[in-house]
Amino acid sequence: MKTQKIGLIGCGYWGSNLCRVLAQHPQVELRWICDPSAKALEKAKRLAPQAGLWTTVEASLADGDVDGVVVAVPVENHFHVAMAALQADKHVLVEKPLSRTVSEATRLCDEADRRHRVLMVGHTFLYNGAVRRIKSMIDGGELGEIRYIFMRRLNLGIVRHDVDALWNLAPHDLSILNYWIDRPVVQMSAVGHSYLQPGIADVVFAHVTYEGNIAGHIQVSWLDPSKVRQATVVGSRRMLLYDDTSNDARIVVYDKGIDAKDLSSNLGGFETFAQHQFTVRAGDAWLPKVDFNEPLFEEISDFVGSIAEGRQPLASGASGLAVVQQLEQLSAAMKEGSPVGG
Amino acid sequence: MKTQKIGLIGCGYWGSNLCRVLAQHPQVELRWICDPSAKALEKAKRLAPQAGLWTTVEASLADGDVDGVVVAVPVENHFHVAMAALQADKHVLVEKPLSRTVSEATRLCDEADRRHRVLMVGHTFLYNGAVRRIKSMIDGGELGEIRYIFMRRLNLGIVRHDVDALWNLAPHDLSILNYWIDRPVVQMSAVGHSYLQPGIADVVFAHVTYEGNIAGHIQVSWLDPSKVRQATVVGSRRMLLYDDTSNDARIVVYDKGIDAKDLSSNLGGFETFAQHQFTVRAGDAWLPKVDFNEPLFEEISDFVGSIAEGRQPLASGASGLAVVQQLEQLSAAMKEGSPVGG
Amino acid sequence: MKTQKIGLIGCGYWGSNLCRVLAQHPQVELRWICDPSAKALEKAKRLAPQAGLWTTVEASLADGDVDGVVVAVPVENHFHVAMAALQADKHVLVEKPLSRTVSEATRLCDEADRRHRVLMVGHTFLYNGAVRRIKSMIDGGELGEIRYIFMRRLNLGIVRHDVDALWNLAPHDLSILNYWIDRPVVQMSAVGHSYLQPGIADVVFAHVTYEGNIAGHIQVSWLDPSKVRQATVVGSRRMLLYDDTSNDARIVVYDKGIDAKDLSSNLGGFETFAQHQFTVRAGDAWLPKVDFNEPLFEEISDFVGSIAEGRQPLASGASGLAVVQQLEQLSAAMKEGSPVGG
Amino acid sequence: MKTQKIGLIGCGYWGSNLCRVLAQHPQVELRWICDPSAKALEKAKRLAPQAGLWTTVEASLADGDVDGVVVAVPVENHFHVAMAALQADKHVLVEKPLSRTVSEATRLCDEADRRHRVLMVGHTFLYNGAVRRIKSMIDGGELGEIRYIFMRRLNLGIVRHDVDALWNLAPHDLSILNYWIDRPVVQMSAVGHSYLQPGIADVVFAHVTYEGNIAGHIQVSWLDPSKVRQATVVGSRRMLLYDDTSNDARIVVYDKGIDAKDLSSNLGGFETFAQHQFTVRAGDAWLPKVDFNEPLFEEISDFVGSIAEGRQPLASGASGLAVVQQLEQLSAAMKEGSPVGG
Repeated sequence: MKTQKIGLIGCGYWGSNLCRVLAQHPQVELRWICDPSAKALEKAKRLAPQAGLWTTVEASLADGDVDGVVVAVPVENHFHVAMAALQADKHVLVEKPLSRTVSEATRLCDEADRRHRVLMVGHTFLYNGAVRRIKSMIDGGELGEIRYIFMRRLNLGIVRHDVDALWNLAPHDLSILNYWIDRPVVQMSAVGHSYLQPGIADVVFAHVTYEGNIAGHIQVSWLDPSKVRQATVVGSRRMLLYDDTSNDARIVVYDKGIDAKDLSSNLGGFETFAQHQFTVRAGDAWLPKVDFNEPLFEEISDFVGSIAEGRQPLASGASGLAVVQQLEQLSAAMKEGSPVGG
Repeated sequence: MKTQKIGLIGCGYWGSNLCRVLAQHPQVELRWICDPSAKALEKAKRLAPQAGLWTTVEASLADGDVDGVVVAVPVENHFHVAMAALQADKHVLVEKPLSRTVSEATRLCDEADRRHRVLMVGHTFLYNGAVRRIKSMIDGGELGEIRYIFMRRLNLGIVRHDVDALWNLAPHDLSILNYWIDRPVVQMSAVGHSYLQPGIADVVFAHVTYEGNIAGHIQVSWLDPSKVRQATVVGSRRMLLYDDTSNDARIVVYDKGIDAKDLSSNLGGFETFAQHQFTVRAGDAWLPKVDFNEPLFEEISDFVGSIAEGRQPLASGASGLAVVQQLEQLSAAMKEGSPVGG
Repeated sequence: MKTQKIGLIGCGYWGSNLCRVLAQHPQVELRWICDPSAKALEKAKRLAPQAGLWTTVEASLADGDVDGVVVAVPVENHFHVAMAALQADKHVLVEKPLSRTVSEATRLCDEADRRHRVLMVGHTFLYNGAVRRIKSMIDGGELGEIRYIFMRRLNLGIVRHDVDALWNLAPHDLSILNYWIDRPVVQMSAVGHSYLQPGIADVVFAHVTYEGNIAGHIQVSWLDPSKVRQATVVGSRRMLLYDDTSNDARIVVYDKGIDAKDLSSNLGGFETFAQHQFTVRAGDAWLPKVDFNEPLFEEISDFVGSIAEGRQPLASGASGLAVVQQLEQLSAAMKEGSPVGG
Repeated sequence: MKTQKIGLIGCGYWGSNLCRVLAQHPQVELRWICDPSAKALEKAKRLAPQAGLWTTVEASLADGDVDGVVVAVPVENHFHVAMAALQADKHVLVEKPLSRTVSEATRLCDEADRRHRVLMVGHTFLYNGAVRRIKSMIDGGELGEIRYIFMRRLNLGIVRHDVDALWNLAPHDLSILNYWIDRPVVQMSAVGHSYLQPGIADVVFAHVTYEGNIAGHIQVSWLDPSKVRQATVVGSRRMLLYDDTSNDARIVVYDKGIDAKDLSSNLGGFETFAQHQFTVRAGDAWLPKVDFNEPLFEEISDFVGSIAEGRQPLASGASGLAVVQQLEQLSAAMKEGSPVGG
C-alpha cells in the first residue's frame, strides 16, 4: 500500500505515543513534528530522528509536503488546529474528544466534507481487539438482545485542568457504547463530584438510555485506588465481562441468563409462591482468544488507509461529533441535576 | 447471659437461615416456628426439632410464652405481622426492608417506643466484621475525609415479585452507607431498568449525596453474570477496596492519594503546563485481618442482648425507618426521572 | 432406597463433619456415636440429638444394631478399630489414610473380602464434582495424552503430631492421581523438610512417575501462607487448571498446546535456526460448569449404596491400600534420599 | 558518569531487547551490533540507527574501539565468544547461563581475573525491584529464619533446542535463591520429563537444600497453560508471596506463622490431645510498594558502572559459575535419578 506523508502537531504525553507509532508504521512517512516545547521536541527527535521539527502550527502547516496531520494538542486547541489543517487541505486525525462544543465539531465535519478530506477522531478503543470481538458477538446475536452495559474507567491520576473526568475519560466509553449498540439515544443523565479542583468533576456517573430500553452506565474517575477498565454486557442469552487490564481473561462469556417459566409448584413457605416462575440458567463459561495488536497502530492504519482509499474511517468525524453531543448534554444534566433527552 | 425465648414467623429461603442460627444460639431458646407451608415446617423441624410449629400468625402469637419474635415474611406483610407482634408486647426483629412505606415504618417505630419494646431490622451487614472494621477506620480518621463510596451488589437471581432490585438489595447498601457516613442526606437520584417483569426494575443505579459533598453510588442488579459485593471507599488520605466475596483479601487499604503541590516546572509540550500541580502518592497497601464471625449470629446476639439489657440495637427501628425513607425517595426519583432532596 | 443403620467412632475435628452429614443423610439412620471425650460427645449430641453415645469402641460395637461403622479416629488407631468393626461383621468406612502400614491395609482388605463386607476409605476428593468432571475429560480424550499433573495442597496448620504432612495431606492427591491416570506407578521419589517437630516433615515434594512417562508431582505443606488446592493437568491436546478454592473458575480448560511443525524458514539471527519447529497453539479457554454437591454427602451415599447393593465403592479398600503403598514408599524415598520403584 | 562504548554480539529474540536498552541507555554508546543474519541486522538497525553492523564475531572484535561487549548468542557459543572478547581485552556481559560446563565457566572467570576485566552474567532478576526488596526483608530479619522457598517459572513455549528447560529457565531461579539465601548448598536433586524432544526435558522439578535446612524447590516448564513467575518464601516470623506477573500485588507479606505453645488443655475427642501445642498466628497482610524500573536497564547500568569504577557487578562471573555448577549437578541428578551433594 502507498505510504502517506504525515505531520504530528503536539508531542506531549499522548503525542509521544503517536510519535512512536507513526515513526514505526510501514505505511507512514513521518515528515515533521510540531511542539512549542524544546524539551518535547528533543524527546521526539529520539523517537523519530528523520522528522523535521517545528515550534508553531503555522510554520508546520506551511511545510506543505504532507498528506495528513495528526493533532494531539490540549482539548481547547483541537478546533483551531484541526480547522487550520483542514483549511490547508490536509486529512486530519484529532485526539478525542473531537472538540469542546457541538458547534465546533459540526464545523469541522462540514469543512472536511466540503474539502473531501478525511476527518478522524482518536477513539482508540474502536481499534482494540477485545472491543471488536464483542461487537461481532453482539451483531452475530450470540448474546441475545442486549439489556444493559456497565462500564468503568478508573485510575489514580492523571488529573487534568483543561477538562473534567467526563470529557477526559468518557469519550472512550461513549464511543464504545455507540459502536456496540448502534441505536439512537433517548435519554441521558449524569452526576459528578469535584474534590480536587472547583468545578472540575473528578468522578462522574453517566447514564445513557438507548432506544429499546438498552441502558449504558458509565463510571469514570481519576481518583480511584485501582486501574479499572471493565465492561459488563448483559444480554438475554448470554452475558460477558470484559477486563482490558487482564492478560489471561480479557473477555469471559457466560452462558447464563434468567428464563421465564410456567408457574409449576411452590416449594412451601411464605416467600416461595411466585419465586419460581424464573429459572436461572448457568452453564459453562468461555474465554475467547483476543488479538493483542496495538490499538494505536490499527488506528493509524485506518487513518492512512482511509486517505489512500478515499473512504470514511471507523472513528469518523461523525462518530466524534456524536460523542461531543453526548458529552455536552451529559455536562448539562450534571450541572442542572436533571436528565436530558437524547 | 440470660436466655431469651424467641418465636420465628416465616421459614422460607431466608427464614431457614434465621431458624438454623436461632436453634444453635446459646442465648436463644427457639420456642416455635410459624409458616403456612407444611413443607417449610417440615424443613424447619429438622433444623430445630424441639420447637413448636404453627401455621398462622395469630395462633403463634397467642402462644404467649416468648420474649421476642423474628419476622421473615414477604415484604408486603412486614408491617402487619410486626405490628401484631408488637401489640402482643413482644420484642420484634423484622427482616429488611422494615416496611413498604415510610408511614408503616413510622407507625412501627412509634408502637415500639410506646410499649418500650425493642424494634430491630435485619440489616445484617452492620454485623459483618469487614463493615465494622471499615467503620472504625473511617471514624479513626485513617482514610482522611471521605469523598465517595461506590457499592455494587450484583448476582444472577433470585428474582423477586414483591419488590424490585432496589427494595430487595439496596437496603443492605443504604444501611452500610448510613452507618459509615453518619450524616444527613442532601440529594438523591436513581435510574432503573425493567427487563424481566414490567414495572419491577432488575437493575438500579442509585446516587445519594450526603452533607459535605460525600457521594454514595449504588449499583444493584439480579441480572448480572457474577456475584459481586464490593465497595470502594475513597478518602483524602487513603482509599480502600472491600470485597465481601474474597477469602484472602476482604479489605485492601491503599496508602494512595492525590496531593496538591506548588506549581514547579513544566516538562515541555502543549499538554504539560499545568498537569503537575497534583502529585500522585502511591505507597504500600495492606490487608487488615477481618473476623469471620457469622453476621447473622452477631445480629441475633444484638437482638437478644438488647432485650436483656433494655437498650437499642445497632440496627434499630430508626435505622430501618431511615432506609425506608431513602428507598421511597429513590423510587420516586426513578419513576419521575429527576433527583429528589434528602 | 433402604436406610442403613450407622455408628460413628471418633467425633473430633473431622468426625464432627461426618456426624453432621450422617445425621442429615436421608439413607442413614445414625444410631450411635463413640468418643472417649465428654466434650466431643456433648458437641455430637447437638448435631445428632437422637443418637446413642458411647465412650469405648468395645461398648459401641457390642451395640450390635448397626449395618456399618464409620471410623474417624487418629491414624495410629485406624487398623485396630477398623479390624474390630469388620470382625463384628460391620461394613466399614475408615478415614484416610486407610492405615499406617501396607501390612495393616492388606489385612483389612483380606478381612473384608473374607466376610463379604464393604471396606471403604475416606478419599473424599473422589466425590468432588470437579475431580469427576476432569476424570471424564481425561477418559473422553478431550485433553489428548496426559503428560504431567502438578498438584498443590497447602495451608497454614493444622499441624499433626501423629503423621507428617505427607501422610496427612498427600492421600488426597495420590487418590486423585490414581483415579485420573489409572496406570501402574513405575518410580517415585520425595524430599521433605521438618521445621516444627523433629522427624515430622512439614513440607513434602513427592514425585510419582506412572507408566507411559506420565508424571505426577505433589507439593503438600501445612506451613504455607495461603490455602491452595490446585492441580495443573497438561495433555497433548489441551491443558487445564483446577482450583478447588475458586468459586467462579473451578476448572479452566485451555485449548493450548505445542505442535511439532516442519522446519520452514529461519527468521534470522543466532538463536532462530531451530526455534520454529514447534508452534504454540493458544485458542479459546472455557470454564465448564461444575456441580457443587457436598463431596462428603456423596461419599456417604456411596458407602450406604455399596452396603445396600453389595458392590464395591469407588473409594474401595483396594484404592486405600494402593495409596498406603505409595505413602510407604515415598516415606522410604524421603528418608533415604533416593528414588524407589513403583 | 562516563559513557562506555559497547558492542553487542547476537541480536535474536533476547538480543533485540538488549539492543533496545543499549541504544537508549544514557551511559552507553552502542558502537556496533554483530549477527550473521541479515534480517536480524535489519531489525537492529531500526532500533539503533547509529550503530555499525558486523556479520562475524572476528570482524566485530577487530573493531577495537569498544570498552565492553555484550554476548547474546546461543548457549553453546557462550564460551567461545565470551573468551574471544576477553582475550581482546574487553569487559564482557554474557547471557545466562554463563556457559555449558563448569570447566568453561571457570576458564572464563580465570581469564577475566587475569586481565582485570569485568565478567558479568545476565542474571536479570537480580536487578528486579521485587527480588531486591525481598532480599532486604530477608537480610533485615523481617521474615525471621528462612525455612523454604518455592519457585515456579512456567510458560507455554518458547521451546529450545540447544538447552532443556532446566538450563533455559532455572538459571533465573537459582541466581535468585543464591542471592536471597547466600549459604552453601548441601544437597540437590531433580526430576525431569521430556515430551516434545527426546532427551530435552520440558518440565523439571529441582530441589536445592542449603545449609541450615533451608529448602529451595524450583518448578520450571515451557509446557504449561499459564505464564507463572511466582515464589513463596516461608520464614519463621512471616511469609510472603511474590508474583512477578501481578500489577497490583507483586509482593504480599503475611504476618503469619505457627508458634509453639505450652500444652494447655485438650478440647476432647480422639484427635484433639496434642493438636494444640501449636497455634496459628494470622494477622494483617501488606503489599509493599515495588519500584518498576526495567531490570534490563538496571543490569546494563551495573555493567557500565562496574567498568567505570573497576568493581565487581552484582551478577558477577562468580555468581554465574555457581549457577553453572548447580545446573551441572542437577542435570546429573536428573539423569541418574539420585540426589547429589552440593
